[in-house]
Amino acid sequence: MAVYTDVSEDELARFLGSYDIGALLSFKGIAEGVENSNFLVHAERGHYILTLYEKRVAAGDLPFFLALMEHLADRGITCPQPVHNRQGVVLGEIAGRPAAIVTFLDGLWIRRPGVKHCAAVGEALARLHLAGQDFGMTRANALTVGDWRPLYAQADGRADSVQHGLAEAIARELDALEKSWPRGLPQGVIHADLFPDNVFFLGDKLSGLIDFYFACTDTLAYDVAICLNAWCFEPDHSYNVTKGRALLQGYSAVRALSAAEREALPLLARGSALRFLLTRLVDWLRVPDGALVRPKDPLEYFRKLRFHQSVAGVRDYGFE
Amino acid sequence: MAVYTDVSEDELARFLGSYDIGALLSFKGIAEGVENSNFLVHAERGHYILTLYEKRVAAGDLPFFLALMEHLADRGITCPQPVHNRQGVVLGEIAGRPAAIVTFLDGLWIRRPGVKHCAAVGEALARLHLAGQDFGMTRANALTVGDWRPLYAQADGRADSVQHGLAEAIARELDALEKSWPRGLPQGVIHADLFPDNVFFLGDKLSGLIDFYFACTDTLAYDVAICLNAWCFEPDHSYNVTKGRALLQGYSAVRALSAAEREALPLLARGSALRFLLTRLVDWLRVPDGALVRPKDPLEYFRKLRFHQSVAGVRDYGFE
Repeated sequence: MAVYTDVSEDELARFLGSYDIGALLSFKGIAEGVENSNFLVHAERGHYILTLYEKRVAAGDLPFFLALMEHLADRGITCPQPVHNRQGVVLGEIAGRPAAIVTFLDGLWIRRPGVKHCAAVGEALARLHLAGQDFGMTRANALTVGDWRPLYAQADGRADSVQHGLAEAIARELDALEKSWPRGLPQGVIHADLFPDNVFFLGDKLSGLIDFYFACTDTLAYDVAICLNAWCFEPDHSYNVTKGRALLQGYSAVRALSAAEREALPLLARGSALRFLLTRLVDWLRVPDGALVRPKDPLEYFRKLRFHQSVAGVRDYGFE
Repeated sequence: MAVYTDVSEDELARFLGSYDIGALLSFKGIAEGVENSNFLVHAERGHYILTLYEKRVAAGDLPFFLALMEHLADRGITCPQPVHNRQGVVLGEIAGRPAAIVTFLDGLWIRRPGVKHCAAVGEALARLHLAGQDFGMTRANALTVGDWRPLYAQADGRADSVQHGLAEAIARELDALEKSWPRGLPQGVIHADLFPDNVFFLGDKLSGLIDFYFACTDTLAYDVAICLNAWCFEPDHSYNVTKGRALLQGYSAVRALSAAEREALPLLARGSALRFLLTRLVDWLRVPDGALVRPKDPLEYFRKLRFHQSVAGVRDYGFE
């Protein structure tokens, strides 16, 4: 949950004055998202989300994210649409932060995903990958294999304060993944953060995808591995093979996974688990000043990593 | 800002199923309010606020608060309206907490109130007091003069860790206020927490009052004193006599302050400053487990208290 920056009525009026959305009727901070400050804006012309991009988002990347949302929506992916101001511009500034208004998307995120939700998210991810194939911009993944060692350095030798033996396990996994990280698999736009709170449902039907602020150009199957981690484990951190099968089948029905991609899946899943383990570990050890964030448990991803290390092949994910 | 309790889709569906508001379209935690968990609910029939009452609100008081909102709205005060479920009941339970749905109120709260806003809030407060005169229920103020000493005891002798000399200043003020607290002034329903974030404006026009969860039966002029503290000081904690005058004139235009009420105002303002100093101090020293709250600075109210101690009479508030 997050509102890092509050906005005064004067700043807001000045900012919204450049948009054709009518008079402001309501403005409320939203307790969702952990990277940016989000506000629900009710104006005469409709409901919108105003996002203030905080320092963890590089301002130079914003045109990529916003153009991607427009590109995907043009190709039938339901996602928030950046609103153009009277000058045709989608990116402005408020309270000293880059800021954008996007359309409000109905739907709820699912606190306890079931098998149906996993199938739907697999299918939606594949559609996203296909829709992104002709997107003209690229953005390197800032949190991929080469970035994990410097990221881990920010934990400053304190991993064992979270759990004894964690430091050595991470060091060994970094060595292993740097040596054997899969290369040459199909690339494209990946969401890179398609967790349950970024997928909306209306009833059992997937109604939209949000939060493209980790999106980048990377291995498509890595995005699948992220979703396995994010959707297919139970609250006790055990892997649910039925959910995994549903997600992988949902994906494959839209975009077939090649033999090479399937073979790489356990390694990609280990990498994905390590990536979230490391970001959570760093956050856990150093909650930023002024942030109203309860850090997420890094050990959840350590347990997931252990599972993926034990996997013999894609069949263990429930997939043939 | 606050979402202390999250709600799963199953719990939500079960709860909303007893209301005639149509299918759920969206559900978002709101980063406002510090006592309860608030969610914005978009359903087919409209927009609502779902509030889960956390432990700081006594469940036995909820019927008072909810009935008061209905009573006030019947008398023309714009405030959230509790929604009755199919059994005609306004209070339910969700995620183990008492919960209610109220109507969504458009409007924005003013981060930097000006003189006009102070005049409007004075007038609205007086209207609230008049509208409450024939409300049939009563509720004792749980945070009035007799409660401050036990409240201070929760600071556990640690006041001087916040500022040297604070403990002695509080002890002396408690002695003084317990001896001389004004009695026999006109009583009625008071809001008791009419801070800027509980007053909505559309443009310069006051559009509604929210958050009646401190409302109680107490000295009406004490409510005026709370508003002087909440609205008429600048960010540097200096008292703005122009704002004070506007607030007091706005109030008096609707409900005249008697000579006794005017005379008592400096003491009531000291009491009000001490009340917020103490609750903030206790919060500051002991942030509750699991709460995603940044405690408010208790010293802001220590400075305000000092100002009120220096006041010779109501004229110093800008009022004749």
